[in-house]
Amino acid sequence: MASLYQTRLHTGESLQPGQPVALPKEQAHYLRSVLRLTPGDKVALFNGRDGEWLAEIVELGKSAALLTLARQLRPQADEPDLWLVFAPVKHARIDFLAEKATELGVSALWPVFTQRTNVSRVNEDRLRANAIEAAEQSERLTVPMVMAATKLEAALASWPAGRRLIVCDETGGGIPVAQALSDNVVSGNAVLIGPEGGFTETELDGLRKLPFVTAVSLGPRVLRADTAALAALACFQAVAGDWRQERPAFKG
Amino acid sequence: MASLYQTRLHTGESLQPGQPVALPKEQAHYLRSVLRLTPGDKVALFNGRDGEWLAEIVELGKSAALLTLARQLRPQADEPDLWLVFAPVKHARIDFLAEKATELGVSALWPVFTQRTNVSRVNEDRLRANAIEAAEQSERLTVPMVMAATKLEAALASWPAGRRLIVCDETGGGIPVAQALSDNVVSGNAVLIGPEGGFTETELDGLRKLPFVTAVSLGPRVLRADTAALAALACFQAVAGDWRQERPAFKG
Repeated sequence: MASLYQTRLHTGESLQPGQPVALPKEQAHYLRSVLRLTPGDKVALFNGRDGEWLAEIVELGKSAALLTLARQLRPQADEPDLWLVFAPVKHARIDFLAEKATELGVSALWPVFTQRTNVSRVNEDRLRANAIEAAEQSERLTVPMVMAATKLEAALASWPAGRRLIVCDETGGGIPVAQALSDNVVSGNAVLIGPEGGFTETELDGLRKLPFVTAVSLGPRVLRADTAALAALACFQAVAGDWRQERPAFKG
Repeated sequence: MASLYQTRLHTGESLQPGQPVALPKEQAHYLRSVLRLTPGDKVALFNGRDGEWLAEIVELGKSAALLTLARQLRPQADEPDLWLVFAPVKHARIDFLAEKATELGVSALWPVFTQRTNVSRVNEDRLRANAIEAAEQSERLTVPMVMAATKLEAALASWPAGRRLIVCDETGGGIPVAQALSDNVVSGNAVLIGPEGGFTETELDGLRKLPFVTAVSLGPRVLRADTAALAALACFQAVAGDWRQERPAFKG
């Protein structure tokens, strides 16, 4: 659905009444040369802390833009506390994964290297840029955190207390996903997705022994890693996340 | 997960014990020049009717391949009766949609033109080729039907009796998806996804009045059309489809 204010931008600046907001060169360029906006035009701004604000462009130069806040459109609200922990895949698919996971409401993206991961480094800035763009377009009030890429074993060794790790297990040992997630609702969650070649037996054995792991099944077909990630996130939101509520009427 | 028989091919030929199977030029080329297989090597074959068979290559020429069937690996089984009816999007995204929807187990892909669809024709052969490739890789025993592209209103005017149409409604009127689908299980289903710009008000009003339509909500964030399609299909399989069963142990 189209927003009333088609342009939504994420900013790191504070959004406080009476306080002007400066946007850097790249965003000024986008407003001026891509969208062809001029002083007097309005856009929506959000920063993940102060809600969403309607802002008016007052100055639009080559190196910066200056805006004043007109009114708050929506108060701040959090997304469900849901991380996506994933073995990185090739470029086009990782861009896509970041976009889709952001639309599906993840609060953090965490690339982890597994034994069969055949991508050796992750461009975290690119991951963040994709997440910001998807957050802007999906009308989120937050941008997912991008966590530093690390080895799976390191991530598991420092796993935060109380956070459930939902592992998509294609070897047949998992509980059907809707049942696993609706039976046992906890507040901090993460979905773990393996690489194209799957986890090794050693990795799976290790994962199954961890007290915070819930192994789930995503049905009888073999899913690509990115499909499995999106399917698990959608199922989570539908049976245990914020898709259980009616969608609020759109802001006026 | 890797299959025991890495190579799975879809064929239009009958798969009957004692009856040799001929594969055409393109598949012979794939076996010979891409996979570097030779007579004596084995592949898996399926046709959507006779289950999955282990087959041995006996002749592998430039214009055809000849195989004999060794044994049946799996008997035929159907996918859930779930169509994806979708407003076509641009090339890369439509390829992706066909791939993912096939992995998620749709039984048919039906492109429909809506009022805001800005793609004027659909390459149905390309859609079918993507669906076949995804079916081969996802270990499906069937390939989704590709239905001829038509106008949405024509599709609705000839809608089959008894088939539910699940409409993803982003305007706030839908029932939360898990609730809508688990409350009322019917055997024939279709998910309808609008174009990037959404349905028009006229289209939505018309859809809401149809007795076979169930409007569902996919949460508070704005999803791209392709994300909404995949999310709705995954939710369907999880709460009303074949993801409710434990995954069968893998064929030996």
